[in-house]
Amino acid sequence: MQNSDFSIHNLPYGIFSTVANPAKRVGVAFEEDIIDLAVVQRVGLFVGIDLPEGIFERHCLNDFIALGKATTGKVRTILQTLLQGGKQELASLAGEVFVAQVTAQMHLPVQIGDYTDFYSSIEHATNTGTMFRDPANALFPNWKHLPVGYHGRASSIVVSGTNIMRPIGQTKADTDDLPTLQASKQMDFELELGFIIGKDTALGQRISTEEAESYIFGLVLFNDWSARDIQKWEYVPLGPFLGKNFGSSISAWIVPLEALEPFRLPTPIQDPSVLPYLTFEGLKNYDIHLEVVIQPEGSSENLVSKSNFKYMYWNMAQQLAHHTINGCNVRVGDMYASGTISGKSPDSYGSMLELAWKGTKPLQMSDGTTRSFLQDNDTIIMRGYCEKEGVRVGFGEVRGKVLPAQPFLKE
Amino acid sequence: MQNSDFSIHNLPYGIFSTVANPAKRVGVAFEEDIIDLAVVQRVGLFVGIDLPEGIFERHCLNDFIALGKATTGKVRTILQTLLQGGKQELASLAGEVFVAQVTAQMHLPVQIGDYTDFYSSIEHATNTGTMFRDPANALFPNWKHLPVGYHGRASSIVVSGTNIMRPIGQTKADTDDLPTLQASKQMDFELELGFIIGKDTALGQRISTEEAESYIFGLVLFNDWSARDIQKWEYVPLGPFLGKNFGSSISAWIVPLEALEPFRLPTPIQDPSVLPYLTFEGLKNYDIHLEVVIQPEGSSENLVSKSNFKYMYWNMAQQLAHHTINGCNVRVGDMYASGTISGKSPDSYGSMLELAWKGTKPLQMSDGTTRSFLQDNDTIIMRGYCEKEGVRVGFGEVRGKVLPAQPFLKE
Repeated sequence: MQNSDFSIHNLPYGIFSTVANPAKRVGVAFEEDIIDLAVVQRVGLFVGIDLPEGIFERHCLNDFIALGKATTGKVRTILQTLLQGGKQELASLAGEVFVAQVTAQMHLPVQIGDYTDFYSSIEHATNTGTMFRDPANALFPNWKHLPVGYHGRASSIVVSGTNIMRPIGQTKADTDDLPTLQASKQMDFELELGFIIGKDTALGQRISTEEAESYIFGLVLFNDWSARDIQKWEYVPLGPFLGKNFGSSISAWIVPLEALEPFRLPTPIQDPSVLPYLTFEGLKNYDIHLEVVIQPEGSSENLVSKSNFKYMYWNMAQQLAHHTINGCNVRVGDMYASGTISGKSPDSYGSMLELAWKGTKPLQMSDGTTRSFLQDNDTIIMRGYCEKEGVRVGFGEVRGKVLPAQPFLKE
Repeated sequence: MQNSDFSIHNLPYGIFSTVANPAKRVGVAFEEDIIDLAVVQRVGLFVGIDLPEGIFERHCLNDFIALGKATTGKVRTILQTLLQGGKQELASLAGEVFVAQVTAQMHLPVQIGDYTDFYSSIEHATNTGTMFRDPANALFPNWKHLPVGYHGRASSIVVSGTNIMRPIGQTKADTDDLPTLQASKQMDFELELGFIIGKDTALGQRISTEEAESYIFGLVLFNDWSARDIQKWEYVPLGPFLGKNFGSSISAWIVPLEALEPFRLPTPIQDPSVLPYLTFEGLKNYDIHLEVVIQPEGSSENLVSKSNFKYMYWNMAQQLAHHTINGCNVRVGDMYASGTISGKSPDSYGSMLELAWKGTKPLQMSDGTTRSFLQDNDTIIMRGYCEKEGVRVGFGEVRGKVLPAQPFLKE
């Protein structure tokens, strides 16, 4: 199973349940299976780790994550040791410790206190600036000086597999005098990665770029569903709101930052140079291959984008240092998304807006239809993985289907 | 005690602890005291209400609020009946049921899942548009068609009495080529009210203006601390971020919506007319007197603003109907703030930005100093109350002191 996303080098955490045992609990993905950590704890295999009773029987990972990396790292190390001998050896020690992933229901892995979305891909920011403003001045004056971000909605973040209803909202065409209420005609995805906070800060405390990674527990794939027509009419001057908060989807498995260690890369050169609090040392980008697929109802998959997390202009350490420079506190379970991850070539853009260039270059589907934006019953699948010298660490997928808008009586 | 904010007509809920009993628990403010609801429950006075055991011994009000208005309304009615005979009668029934407010420590009353800030005062929006853009076109084209709002930071919402550190952040003067990192020179308050959600919706569900008030548990005073210079440099195109999220303060007592019933008023005329989903019937504004006080260190109080919640152009029912028209879900404990509440006259503006008109009309303090924005060690106190025919229902206060910025090593 060397080509499995969920190799011994990965061991991502999630929350699952089964028909046989409908209680939500903590699992680790391994190849095609889930390791039921409550079972591993019950049989006493977490030797020498001070784990609270029932820590793996919670409905979300927050309490486990809050134990800190010293502890969660030991859990990871022991699991890797136990798995050296293959599944059968662990099964012989722990009995019914493996659950087939296909038989499990996955749930939102963390309770998300706050969710922030950044805008840190220079290719994406340049594309949108070129389309909507001035190609010669595509980036706003602040863009290269700070990682621009905004607060998003935590309540509507859902786990992979959850369907998303096409939103209704106010839109106004440039040629119209007045707005109307209608189902969005420009529903889009945004290919992003999100990181999850592993340690609290107090209000007033700052996180330096050196410390930042000790505050990052792990990463997930993130689909920031967007309704471009709603967003366009509402977002001046206070930013995106109903064009975004009808739903965001994350992958079910949180890949721990430790698993990404072999895949570090340098951050692109930042010119002009950044203020001292945003400087950093070492390799802070990650070589994570990303793909977006559109699957029309009853048809096959269409790979519409291949991008990579390595392109990010602002890295996660800078994002966190900036977010806390004013003393804003962070909490275990907080989610920080990257913003749309676009690459340099048109087939690496991270949204329909860019891929179909504002509707001017519709994408061809294998079933003969075309797409400028998403159609009802389209399923969007995003995948991500790292691979190097035979080591593969993957994110699985984040998947969601666009359901038709529901009518509204007062329309 | 007819002039107490916390009359028998109010009975607001909060979370308190005492030195003698440091456990956080639920209380109701009555005159100078707190009624310890756990004691009332223990002696069996909540006759005929199906209350879970220990419901008043939780660290926040969320579980109590989630019982629903049918249940929380009965608690309110029984307390009003018990208090008809005065404090002594209740004390004779329930023993040590009263705790003097001066001896109690107040805590954040709810766990806030998501926080949204609106921008619903036409006077405030007109003032900022006049100052920063064009007096002839002060309002953006969308402003009269929808209640503009954005997502704020929930983690940094603190209870009255918590000091707030002046934030450090990037700012850039128009005359400078590059931004610098420095303590904000334009720290401000914003006078707002916030409402707290009392009932969950599912993702995809909408709340109509008719239903909206059944989703509102109660209201608090809200100080949306703002750093204008940080905000100015960062907020295009994605909205306010570090200029706001270093702290927001709320009053400790949640005034239930039922207590505000006698103080309903009509919403100002909305012209042009709004889309059907934003239409409503009945009196949806509230006559809540609001005051802002600046108290310099070691000096006396300066009343700098007198405003009123009745001025709001968009009412709470419209805000909630708009927020959920796209299917965005709400959860018990969510906070929705009004935006700065400015009145028509210059002494009724709800922020220093407007009161001192961008620094051009500094405010005179009684100690001889002046203020264009807030100075270190200034305490800001906001108060609010309704009064009519001898009935007074008040919010108490939200108070916070501006602490000097902490130096940052990498500056």
